[in-house]
Amino acid sequence: MDKIKRNERLGAMTRILTDTPNRIHTLSEFCELFGSAKSTISEDIDLISASFARFDLGKIETVAGAAGGVRYRAMPSPARVARVLGELAQRLSEPGRMLPGGFLYTSDVTAESVTAQAMGEILAAQYYDRQPHFVLTMETKGIPIALMTARMLDVPLVIARRDSRAYEGSAVKINYIAGGGIGNEHIETMALARRAVSPGQRALIIDDFMKGGGTLQGMVDILRELQAEVVVVGVMIATAEPRTKRVEGARSLLVLEGFDAATGRARVRPSENCL
Amino acid sequence: MDKIKRNERLGAMTRILTDTPNRIHTLSEFCELFGSAKSTISEDIDLISASFARFDLGKIETVAGAAGGVRYRAMPSPARVARVLGELAQRLSEPGRMLPGGFLYTSDVTAESVTAQAMGEILAAQYYDRQPHFVLTMETKGIPIALMTARMLDVPLVIARRDSRAYEGSAVKINYIAGGGIGNEHIETMALARRAVSPGQRALIIDDFMKGGGTLQGMVDILRELQAEVVVVGVMIATAEPRTKRVEGARSLLVLEGFDAATGRARVRPSENCL
Repeated sequence: MDKIKRNERLGAMTRILTDTPNRIHTLSEFCELFGSAKSTISEDIDLISASFARFDLGKIETVAGAAGGVRYRAMPSPARVARVLGELAQRLSEPGRMLPGGFLYTSDVTAESVTAQAMGEILAAQYYDRQPHFVLTMETKGIPIALMTARMLDVPLVIARRDSRAYEGSAVKINYIAGGGIGNEHIETMALARRAVSPGQRALIIDDFMKGGGTLQGMVDILRELQAEVVVVGVMIATAEPRTKRVEGARSLLVLEGFDAATGRARVRPSENCL
Repeated sequence: MDKIKRNERLGAMTRILTDTPNRIHTLSEFCELFGSAKSTISEDIDLISASFARFDLGKIETVAGAAGGVRYRAMPSPARVARVLGELAQRLSEPGRMLPGGFLYTSDVTAESVTAQAMGEILAAQYYDRQPHFVLTMETKGIPIALMTARMLDVPLVIARRDSRAYEGSAVKINYIAGGGIGNEHIETMALARRAVSPGQRALIIDDFMKGGGTLQGMVDILRELQAEVVVVGVMIATAEPRTKRVEGARSLLVLEGFDAATGRARVRPSENCL
């Protein structure tokens, strides 16, 4: 094999590191791949790290110790978070998104990979230090955002279902109070495959929308049944009303203040705790 | 601003290109970002492209013309496809995945971002030239793979639902025949938000599992109602039996041959048309 030059290594290393966010790669892995000395690879890493810092492209971090190496985390800067959430709030405030019953049409946004990725980067950045073992969401609309959050954390995604399907095997089933609207409460069912969660694991609960918080509290309850611990509950967008949610301590990226009936526009703004 | 050296540009450009698969970035975008001449940026692109080719990391392609520029596509090599599908087949053949009724437990695999990403890269690579406008899947288990396929193609994901929810607005609803097992057929309902699809658009249908093909044919039917065209139907895993599926021309990455009752193992192998 020809000797591999720095110019060739930098692109390849960047691709490998950013393709597996939060996963630690040993320097030996790169030494073997490129036939280079550890000191050379270390210099490469410093170059990529400096370049990422300069252009606000995320963090390349060196982790010391026996299980050490180098990893990539997106870690969007406050300026980037403000820009992403500001643009999203503006988009969700476009006319025509108001649906009967005080609902907001968001399916196009939540299922968009670029948006889900940006949300996942922001959500994951807040909880790296809590080291969750998996991300839990409830089908359907939260899945893309939850998947991208799980991707950034390098942990599995677990999906709760409305009913236990034959192809999920043995499941835990609970009832929960859904429907945040006044007089709109009703009992629904949520199921989770037993083999998806181990006792003592830490979970990050992610969903797209919170009104009353009943579905999120259902996820907290079903995890308790499986003796798992909830690190935090995070959602893309929460309604300002009702102020008191059924689930405690949930955090949202955006706040839906309400609708202007005259213009048919939603009033959406970035949440304070994210800026 | 200091002059930005090649060593700094390479990592940043790789990150920007691979973060937005299939999206064309103009050379001017990079010239402005780095304060470099076009010829310099062109040389950078050649270096990254050569490095990606050498280490099987995907394609960096230059697109000529007025809307031209440079883009990244994963385009996994035949060797990589064989390795990914071989590993996945082996994992799905582990004991304990057999569920009553001839079902296979795959939820851990389908919801894993790394696996969904690898499947998305393989599926997207087959259909770049057909230029689909969006990817359609049916909730729930196919969503991660469909999202990652949509990500690689840089198109939206559209999700069909089991029932039309209040927060999706006006929807088209159809009935379809579900359940591939003998004597197990039954009628189910599928709904799709009208505003998610425009007449004349080309769709790539992606799902995780095909037995009888009824759900996939349902997706074909609902797209016809919306006057959209189906480019192709692709699934992660299809059962060998029944041989005749309700939907025509569907392609799968893996084949489920059946189960060994004695060992509790599924017999799963990569599909011929992918190797």
